[in-house]
Amino acid sequence: MFTLDRHPSGRHFLQIPGPTNVPDRVLRAIDRPTIDHRGPEFGDLGRAVLSDIKQVFQTEAPVVIYPSSGTGAWEAALVNTLSPGDRVLMVETGHFSGLWCRLAGRLGLEVELIEGDWRHGADPARVRASLEADAARRIRAVCVVHNETATGVVSDIAAMRAALDAAGHPALLMVDAISSLGAIDYRHDEWGVDVTVAGSQKGLMLPPGLSFNAIGPRALAAADTARLPRSYWDWREMLGPNRNGYFPYTPATNLLYGLHEALSMLREEGLPSVFARHRRHAAATRAAVAAWGLELVCLAPQGHSPALTAVLMPGRQGADALRRTILERYDMSLGQGLGRLADQAFRIGHLGHFNDLTLCGTLAGVEMGLAAAGVPHQPGGVQAAMARLASEPAPAAFY
Amino acid sequence: MFTLDRHPSGRHFLQIPGPTNVPDRVLRAIDRPTIDHRGPEFGDLGRAVLSDIKQVFQTEAPVVIYPSSGTGAWEAALVNTLSPGDRVLMVETGHFSGLWCRLAGRLGLEVELIEGDWRHGADPARVRASLEADAARRIRAVCVVHNETATGVVSDIAAMRAALDAAGHPALLMVDAISSLGAIDYRHDEWGVDVTVAGSQKGLMLPPGLSFNAIGPRALAAADTARLPRSYWDWREMLGPNRNGYFPYTPATNLLYGLHEALSMLREEGLPSVFARHRRHAAATRAAVAAWGLELVCLAPQGHSPALTAVLMPGRQGADALRRTILERYDMSLGQGLGRLADQAFRIGHLGHFNDLTLCGTLAGVEMGLAAAGVPHQPGGVQAAMARLASEPAPAAFY
Amino acid sequence: MFTLDRHPSGRHFLQIPGPTNVPDRVLRAIDRPTIDHRGPEFGDLGRAVLSDIKQVFQTEAPVVIYPSSGTGAWEAALVNTLSPGDRVLMVETGHFSGLWCRLAGRLGLEVELIEGDWRHGADPARVRASLEADAARRIRAVCVVHNETATGVVSDIAAMRAALDAAGHPALLMVDAISSLGAIDYRHDEWGVDVTVAGSQKGLMLPPGLSFNAIGPRALAAADTARLPRSYWDWREMLGPNRNGYFPYTPATNLLYGLHEALSMLREEGLPSVFARHRRHAAATRAAVAAWGLELVCLAPQGHSPALTAVLMPGRQGADALRRTILERYDMSLGQGLGRLADQAFRIGHLGHFNDLTLCGTLAGVEMGLAAAGVPHQPGGVQAAMARLASEPAPAAFY
Amino acid sequence: MFTLDRHPSGRHFLQIPGPTNVPDRVLRAIDRPTIDHRGPEFGDLGRAVLSDIKQVFQTEAPVVIYPSSGTGAWEAALVNTLSPGDRVLMVETGHFSGLWCRLAGRLGLEVELIEGDWRHGADPARVRASLEADAARRIRAVCVVHNETATGVVSDIAAMRAALDAAGHPALLMVDAISSLGAIDYRHDEWGVDVTVAGSQKGLMLPPGLSFNAIGPRALAAADTARLPRSYWDWREMLGPNRNGYFPYTPATNLLYGLHEALSMLREEGLPSVFARHRRHAAATRAAVAAWGLELVCLAPQGHSPALTAVLMPGRQGADALRRTILERYDMSLGQGLGRLADQAFRIGHLGHFNDLTLCGTLAGVEMGLAAAGVPHQPGGVQAAMARLASEPAPAAFY
Repeated sequence: MFTLDRHPSGRHFLQIPGPTNVPDRVLRAIDRPTIDHRGPEFGDLGRAVLSDIKQVFQTEAPVVIYPSSGTGAWEAALVNTLSPGDRVLMVETGHFSGLWCRLAGRLGLEVELIEGDWRHGADPARVRASLEADAARRIRAVCVVHNETATGVVSDIAAMRAALDAAGHPALLMVDAISSLGAIDYRHDEWGVDVTVAGSQKGLMLPPGLSFNAIGPRALAAADTARLPRSYWDWREMLGPNRNGYFPYTPATNLLYGLHEALSMLREEGLPSVFARHRRHAAATRAAVAAWGLELVCLAPQGHSPALTAVLMPGRQGADALRRTILERYDMSLGQGLGRLADQAFRIGHLGHFNDLTLCGTLAGVEMGLAAAGVPHQPGGVQAAMARLASEPAPAAFY
Repeated sequence: MFTLDRHPSGRHFLQIPGPTNVPDRVLRAIDRPTIDHRGPEFGDLGRAVLSDIKQVFQTEAPVVIYPSSGTGAWEAALVNTLSPGDRVLMVETGHFSGLWCRLAGRLGLEVELIEGDWRHGADPARVRASLEADAARRIRAVCVVHNETATGVVSDIAAMRAALDAAGHPALLMVDAISSLGAIDYRHDEWGVDVTVAGSQKGLMLPPGLSFNAIGPRALAAADTARLPRSYWDWREMLGPNRNGYFPYTPATNLLYGLHEALSMLREEGLPSVFARHRRHAAATRAAVAAWGLELVCLAPQGHSPALTAVLMPGRQGADALRRTILERYDMSLGQGLGRLADQAFRIGHLGHFNDLTLCGTLAGVEMGLAAAGVPHQPGGVQAAMARLASEPAPAAFY
Repeated sequence: MFTLDRHPSGRHFLQIPGPTNVPDRVLRAIDRPTIDHRGPEFGDLGRAVLSDIKQVFQTEAPVVIYPSSGTGAWEAALVNTLSPGDRVLMVETGHFSGLWCRLAGRLGLEVELIEGDWRHGADPARVRASLEADAARRIRAVCVVHNETATGVVSDIAAMRAALDAAGHPALLMVDAISSLGAIDYRHDEWGVDVTVAGSQKGLMLPPGLSFNAIGPRALAAADTARLPRSYWDWREMLGPNRNGYFPYTPATNLLYGLHEALSMLREEGLPSVFARHRRHAAATRAAVAAWGLELVCLAPQGHSPALTAVLMPGRQGADALRRTILERYDMSLGQGLGRLADQAFRIGHLGHFNDLTLCGTLAGVEMGLAAAGVPHQPGGVQAAMARLASEPAPAAFY
Repeated sequence: MFTLDRHPSGRHFLQIPGPTNVPDRVLRAIDRPTIDHRGPEFGDLGRAVLSDIKQVFQTEAPVVIYPSSGTGAWEAALVNTLSPGDRVLMVETGHFSGLWCRLAGRLGLEVELIEGDWRHGADPARVRASLEADAARRIRAVCVVHNETATGVVSDIAAMRAALDAAGHPALLMVDAISSLGAIDYRHDEWGVDVTVAGSQKGLMLPPGLSFNAIGPRALAAADTARLPRSYWDWREMLGPNRNGYFPYTPATNLLYGLHEALSMLREEGLPSVFARHRRHAAATRAAVAAWGLELVCLAPQGHSPALTAVLMPGRQGADALRRTILERYDMSLGQGLGRLADQAFRIGHLGHFNDLTLCGTLAGVEMGLAAAGVPHQPGGVQAAMARLASEPAPAAFY
């Protein structure tokens, strides 16, 4: 039987790479009474979040907010800009890029896939080559995942933009920033992204239930001619009412309260500090993994994710048993290996509302779990992480 | 500037016909820390809500839960069962039936509309006539709104089923129960509905952000051949993981906590008591409207909505000014006139988490507002409502 | 079995004259994690509430905050200023003045009582006469209840001060402002009060659990020579640490969060508006009582309480049965008749976080309850109250 | 300026030995609307908590609950049982035993003190000797602190009882269980304690604001003849209304909601498991301290506290600077050295709502703080604690 109220003593460590630990401030904000979504108070709320969210995307472009999971925002990016039979170039970086491919196919798009080994980010040279080979300009969009949540590998989006430019190809650049937004430096405008896809439950520190499209001007123009059927996801329906802070259908008001609060928190900490914090925690986590003698999924020197760390099991098996042991003994949830990494890897989320001591507790849980599950490793990971943290002190706290 | 925290003294009266007043129990449930949506605890939650939600629909059929607003569930009903160019028969009952028509058109369906005067429910005889005229069986679905939120008129769904049966027509019967579920007796199975569409923010007493499709066996079969492109809304993706309590993409976990709590509340009160409570409050509201000498939008004797009451303004104007006066002076939100009723009518929501004294406060706000706004009326509405309430005492409370 | 979670549908009407309805803002503030009561963040909190609370007492004097109920603050006022065998002059205004007498007696003080009829406030002339008769200056303190919660009668504290002055008597003036603070204009400094006693659960809109002493300079001086044993209540222990925002023993941190929020709310509304709001609601309530043909407990024209209204039952019996009926049928709690008014009177609280529509709902509950319980009365009370409210519109809301 | 809402990213580690980390379940329970403290629902609540609280004291005797801090419960224990000039035998175990002495003196009692070194528990032999020397039976009570929060030393209460028995002395045995109740095995009945004093903000996992007296039959009898003045604290006033679940003055209702929830949590986990958990975490903490090469305050082999660990600074100075460094860099609050241990020691609280990973995070914060503050120590404390935890696995979780 499910009950909301049975847990072992102490606070659960939710260290999957999203949903992340929701701050009490955000939970309390969500706990307010719902208001009239057509009244003046809602208009104030709507205008505030629709304006402030742009800062997190580092954009001046409009950002639409859907009551949906991030998967919905993927669909929205495609149906608003493309027509049946259009070709999209997708770069395989891991499980989530694969899901996006599958989604595109189901919507009636033709997918050209640049295969990958799930251990490196997207290769701009191969994208450029594919685009240059597309003499007929049949490719209408290039889709890349910024931070592949399944592998902990970051792709260089600025380089991707440069590849399109070098190829002189007019395809739209669409980027999944679901697990990077609010955790890793992401620049919609500067990088010339046409559509950015994001969700609420990662760096934005919200529960799941909201998703986002940041929409550059070329994408907006494409929406005028795109012929994939759409209604719920239609940007044009959104952008009109959004101008006054309203929505064309009932928005997820209470999650918007939470968004308002989360955006305040990010602003108070400052985005550069937020990004530095994630990099620092990721470096400490990698120091622990190295001390344990375990292997990272990520092989790209520049691609290590500040948001999560995916770790290969010795012998490439037993990750699920390890995770079960850690959950049962230490009340911590870790991310599972997905797709071809099933049972081969586990993932440590260190993004969102997080700090040094929670990271140390997290790594202690992994280290004790490795021992309890009989996984070959060296002890000393927590010690190494502590040394790494101490070598680069966190910025002064608010106190 | 928006702030979550500035209100006049006392509790706001949110008497729009949805979102409704969310009970503290539900808000507190939503305020729990988010959990791993792939872990065992989530499985317990998922199985519980996916099973319990069926009781509210009075069905044994599967019910899928989307992280979306109710509009999304409309779209889901259509894209899962129909193919481009299919014809749907829609019955105009008010603004929301019109939105459904528009949505169908945008998805590439051909809409045959039975026009209505927005003051009566759907006429089974006309539906039957249209179906009988469809010798080629081009109509694939009949779409009806159970409780038209824009007008406060209920349509007889059992009679609609009988009309299809009498016509011997194989079209699917799709029903929008968004503002009736959990407030008005609704019987998915007994009435032979193929797809029921619902949302969280009305009789289910949740904030907006979840929507539902109850899926009868013929609809499920239709999904195998339907060719409208779909991914996010695809039932088949949902039904597999749902069997174990999981979802194909990240669900809106915290709203599911709230759903679990709301279903407990409905079960504790008992659905028959819930329905009786709504009928009683609606009757008292109509007694007030009659005492004021105002006219109801609903002209159908059997169609008065237990969930909301729409009231015409004398002279068919000034509803928005009245609502503004009531909001500013009495801190109460009423529903606006929608579509062709804009500024002509206002709507009083009396559904969800509600009781006698809140109803009296609500009606007092309307009566004082009518006076303050200079709307011609007779006093005595609250008095009449109190008499009506006293004439049929509420059931014994839990104390 | 007790469960936090079983209530009838809708919001309970808590219309006892305290504890009052706690605003969601305050409840959410209390719901924050507890912090270190010796850390810098707590110091900020402590300084803020210890400073801001003075405004509500309209004083520059120190105010100490106890983790206790209001009864504790009565005890504190006496033990800090008096010695065993000291004589105190108390004025009987109702049940609560009687409790204060009893408490004084138990602490070893000698009580001189000016008897009253429970239907008028304290008579300054009689106080003056008693003081003038006290040639030996044995009376060390005069104790008066500002707003007698048991009867709904307000005493004139400025006149009480004048009586002491006219008698040229050095006794301390101690005032119970438990149910007036934050609801009725109360001026500790201007009225020359030496000790004001207050609690959290009335006009301050908090749950019970905090109490207050505002301490004038003469009272502070008296503490140096007072010989009643004291430790927990000792002002001198408090005032030192309070200067930096700390407390000599662990304070009720979470209730202090709530106090911080409640003081913000009172400041936002403005004390003059708060007082006017209470007067207006009380006048409307009395209009209802008059329309019902019932009798007020209060017979003093100037003494009608803005915070609560006590109503006598026809035949002076049956109040408890009426209250039970109202609780069971209408989910509203009213105050019972206390002491000699037991079962003879009931009390309607209209203080704290409150507004016009909640008042109308409240009065509707009383009117329907009178009918249901068979209490002889005229209908039309709610109507009369609405007319009274409309005759003096509330100030513009925040919207 | 104080704001409830400014914290660094991530969850604060509140590792003072109380107030402890309040579980979300308890905070949410406290966040319910306040109810009528004289109504039937409150009676259910009152009966439940007054009955269930006995299990935590392991007693059949009545337990009274005060709206006050723990200091108030000390005062209550004395004023209910003693008369002016009575002699009490107190055992110095640390700062808090000293506060109790001072309080007794201020109430007019004569204190006989058995001095101690603050590094051992109370010595039963010396208590016995003092009692045997008291031929005139002037000693009316023996007061001992079970778990001295200032030093992390536990005294053997069963042995204390045996000392009284061996001396054949009729003095009452009063025990401060403020920081042991709900964390360390405590047996009011089996150990023959006459009055146990406790508070809400330690092992009971509540915010501060409630305190307790468990009252054995001899203490209850003493209350009949005790002549210290008392009113607020008077047991006799409490016990009557308590029989039906009510209180003589307004109780701290919302904290009682929290108590109800906390008692459920303790019952779910089971007291033996709760105690074992605390012992295990304390042992791991001591392993860390030993690895750091630091010295414990506690020198008694049997006296190590399961609830907190007090650590001496090398050179007996700098504890406050260390704590400040840890607060600013790692957002953790540790307990300060109190009284004669000021700046010489710091205290690690590991009681209440707590688990293995939070302990590891806590110890990591201490270890990194020692390094950052330049305190001579050996690294490896966290590693040692992890080894200790792994050597005695926690019981299976609820999952």
